[in-house]
Amino acid sequence: MSDLKHAIDELVIANRILAAEHVTDAFGHVSMRHPDDPKTFLLSRGRAPELIEAADIMAFALDGATVSGAGKPYLERFIHGAIYEARADVQAVVHSHSYSVVPFSVISEKLRPIMHVCAAIGADVPVWDPQHNFGDTDLLVGGMAQGRDLAHALGPRTSILMRGHGSTCVGATLREAVYVAVMLEVNANLQLKAQAFGPVTFLTTGENQKIRARQLKGRPGNGFHRHWQ
Amino acid sequence: MSDLKHAIDELVIANRILAAEHVTDAFGHVSMRHPDDPKTFLLSRGRAPELIEAADIMAFALDGATVSGAGKPYLERFIHGAIYEARADVQAVVHSHSYSVVPFSVISEKLRPIMHVCAAIGADVPVWDPQHNFGDTDLLVGGMAQGRDLAHALGPRTSILMRGHGSTCVGATLREAVYVAVMLEVNANLQLKAQAFGPVTFLTTGENQKIRARQLKGRPGNGFHRHWQ
Amino acid sequence: MSDLKHAIDELVIANRILAAEHVTDAFGHVSMRHPDDPKTFLLSRGRAPELIEAADIMAFALDGATVSGAGKPYLERFIHGAIYEARADVQAVVHSHSYSVVPFSVISEKLRPIMHVCAAIGADVPVWDPQHNFGDTDLLVGGMAQGRDLAHALGPRTSILMRGHGSTCVGATLREAVYVAVMLEVNANLQLKAQAFGPVTFLTTGENQKIRARQLKGRPGNGFHRHWQ
Amino acid sequence: MSDLKHAIDELVIANRILAAEHVTDAFGHVSMRHPDDPKTFLLSRGRAPELIEAADIMAFALDGATVSGAGKPYLERFIHGAIYEARADVQAVVHSHSYSVVPFSVISEKLRPIMHVCAAIGADVPVWDPQHNFGDTDLLVGGMAQGRDLAHALGPRTSILMRGHGSTCVGATLREAVYVAVMLEVNANLQLKAQAFGPVTFLTTGENQKIRARQLKGRPGNGFHRHWQ
Repeated sequence: MSDLKHAIDELVIANRILAAEHVTDAFGHVSMRHPDDPKTFLLSRGRAPELIEAADIMAFALDGATVSGAGKPYLERFIHGAIYEARADVQAVVHSHSYSVVPFSVISEKLRPIMHVCAAIGADVPVWDPQHNFGDTDLLVGGMAQGRDLAHALGPRTSILMRGHGSTCVGATLREAVYVAVMLEVNANLQLKAQAFGPVTFLTTGENQKIRARQLKGRPGNGFHRHWQ
Repeated sequence: MSDLKHAIDELVIANRILAAEHVTDAFGHVSMRHPDDPKTFLLSRGRAPELIEAADIMAFALDGATVSGAGKPYLERFIHGAIYEARADVQAVVHSHSYSVVPFSVISEKLRPIMHVCAAIGADVPVWDPQHNFGDTDLLVGGMAQGRDLAHALGPRTSILMRGHGSTCVGATLREAVYVAVMLEVNANLQLKAQAFGPVTFLTTGENQKIRARQLKGRPGNGFHRHWQ
Repeated sequence: MSDLKHAIDELVIANRILAAEHVTDAFGHVSMRHPDDPKTFLLSRGRAPELIEAADIMAFALDGATVSGAGKPYLERFIHGAIYEARADVQAVVHSHSYSVVPFSVISEKLRPIMHVCAAIGADVPVWDPQHNFGDTDLLVGGMAQGRDLAHALGPRTSILMRGHGSTCVGATLREAVYVAVMLEVNANLQLKAQAFGPVTFLTTGENQKIRARQLKGRPGNGFHRHWQ
Repeated sequence: MSDLKHAIDELVIANRILAAEHVTDAFGHVSMRHPDDPKTFLLSRGRAPELIEAADIMAFALDGATVSGAGKPYLERFIHGAIYEARADVQAVVHSHSYSVVPFSVISEKLRPIMHVCAAIGADVPVWDPQHNFGDTDLLVGGMAQGRDLAHALGPRTSILMRGHGSTCVGATLREAVYVAVMLEVNANLQLKAQAFGPVTFLTTGENQKIRARQLKGRPGNGFHRHWQ
């Protein structure tokens, strides 16, 4: 039970950080897998991220059904549920509409890591487009069909763009998911500036691997934790 | 009478939100139709939006004549009056000069929805240019002739650009008009970034329709209200 | 004497506004002609604009010699003195390095009014380059020779760019000079965004004249004063 | 001892300024040579710059070994040590990831001074790429081998870019190093804007020399000190 309380406190902090870093606006959301029950996840009721408090946190089954808590849930809770269903390694999910990332969802240039601290976004960030399997929609992930299609497109990666919509990032911890979401925006901002001047030197595959290896093993969470401060 | 008091409070909040979101600078203004008298509308006396209080709200006839309240009115109150005159469905009007929108009023590229939350701006945002019917002017909507010309160009839409000047957005509620004005700036900002890299995938006509249908029917005001928080 | 006290208070406010609007950084300065003695002008001692208080205001002769007040003066007080010497109509001068303006001092595109509120910058904003008459220098206006050369290039206008350095704006009142400096930055920011997409529709000569006529006669200071709030 | 206390206070202020100016994010750091022992340098333990207090400052030998203070050091302290080892004239080092600078580390355009206050960055800013001598790495300066390679590439200059990573700036005083780091970001921001429109007029070699001569001799630290306010 104190695990749960701690988890909820961390989730509230994550909401505040993401709002302060301008990763989430009025519409983003961050969840974490329930520390005592991997078949459920914790997510605020639908409200603006910078206002979220512990009492707003609800629990949902992986199919989006309410398990505990009151209030109107986010429509797009299926993003979270479908990814937790598909990825046992994922403990946290951030969905956002950050403004340097969205352009990369509607152009042919691919978002790729430019800077060492951004390697965490993954060497290959795909774009999910609901047109492919669902035709004209309102672009929202309003049910498990869309959620599972998104999770399938994400595959084993840490981040994915959603066309005309935003992005979803995941992590083995809450801090990692938040870090990936922040760095996705940072890299997008840098890439928008750099690519205006022609060819860009991206991180090599070997560099991406070495940076990730350090982040995940050698000094686990060092950068993640300093950022959390 | 308490309807009026509530309306005025909402209008004060709207002014603060638009200033905080950098949609209005020292020169924008937002009005709403009078809740008790559809032939008049409520608009602050001329002052900077972030400073507006309830005592500043005046009432005007649709032709811009002062009905109640004291102070120097905004010169461009004719924007509001002419649109209320032409559009019985419109309950609120926002006029602004937001800085990502103005560039689209002086270039050949059209502002079009890129992102799902921006569908509310309308699939087709026209540009009103007073040169066409009035020749060289000071570009301001300083009388009902210009106001009616603008309202005619707006037609049944929710937003219109004004060349070398700014934009005007309308809504069936105050919250919708504010939402449209915020999303016009958001979409313009995204489109400026994305189009620097070549062709952009805009929302399809079908997507625009599905998103608008959800916003207007299925979950009325959900997004509008969360944004209002 | 109370005129002087009021003038100093206004000048302190002007420094704060220009800093808040990001027109001056650590290096800009604003002066006004002495209300009792047109052969002298008021300018702070050299310190960061957002910190300036009434006790920092000094008085200088038009050739830059200290008349009253203590402290280390700004090296570039000659910008102010030379313009007051050449232009009896000028009552205030703003020198700044605002960051959207500087690019237009080093490229071939000319800064020109795009937006109605920016007509005050003048239809034709020249660029002063000390290379032409002085060869390699440190680019600063460090004496009356450079000051007079700058004043000559300014001619009867309200604003001028300085290559690799910044801009200088003037007004018939302190509020007008501040307004011109703010709008120079606003227009530069809009033009940088718009010209990335090809040809831009600038204000016509007739529009510039009509807007200036309104600002200077019909409703004197209306926009200037609202901005001052 | 009071020299040391003053040095530490200055270093804390430098950390706060660099964070406030958005030069350092969660990952930058600034050091100074120990005032009593040129073979050691002062650097905070690893934490976010805007949070650093006097108690966080540690002392390190030039090879990065801890001399005094407790806590987990920054991995990249070798940047600092190797530069102090190679450059007796350097008293302070700033390492940062500022977001307008990073693009110039991955494109073919060179960062060069556009504006007089930016001459301090040096006429010729090189880019260090660890690929050249170390192949695929995590891009970090994680030991003296990389540190010395970076110091060699820096040579006698005041600033150097690091590919996909950031920049390092040095100074004969702490204030100068901070000033160079701020101006590197300012110049990069201006150059990104200006070069989008074609050829740019950079400072001439003669202008760079005259500006540096003034900054270093005639009015030592004038601009540096005003900025420090």
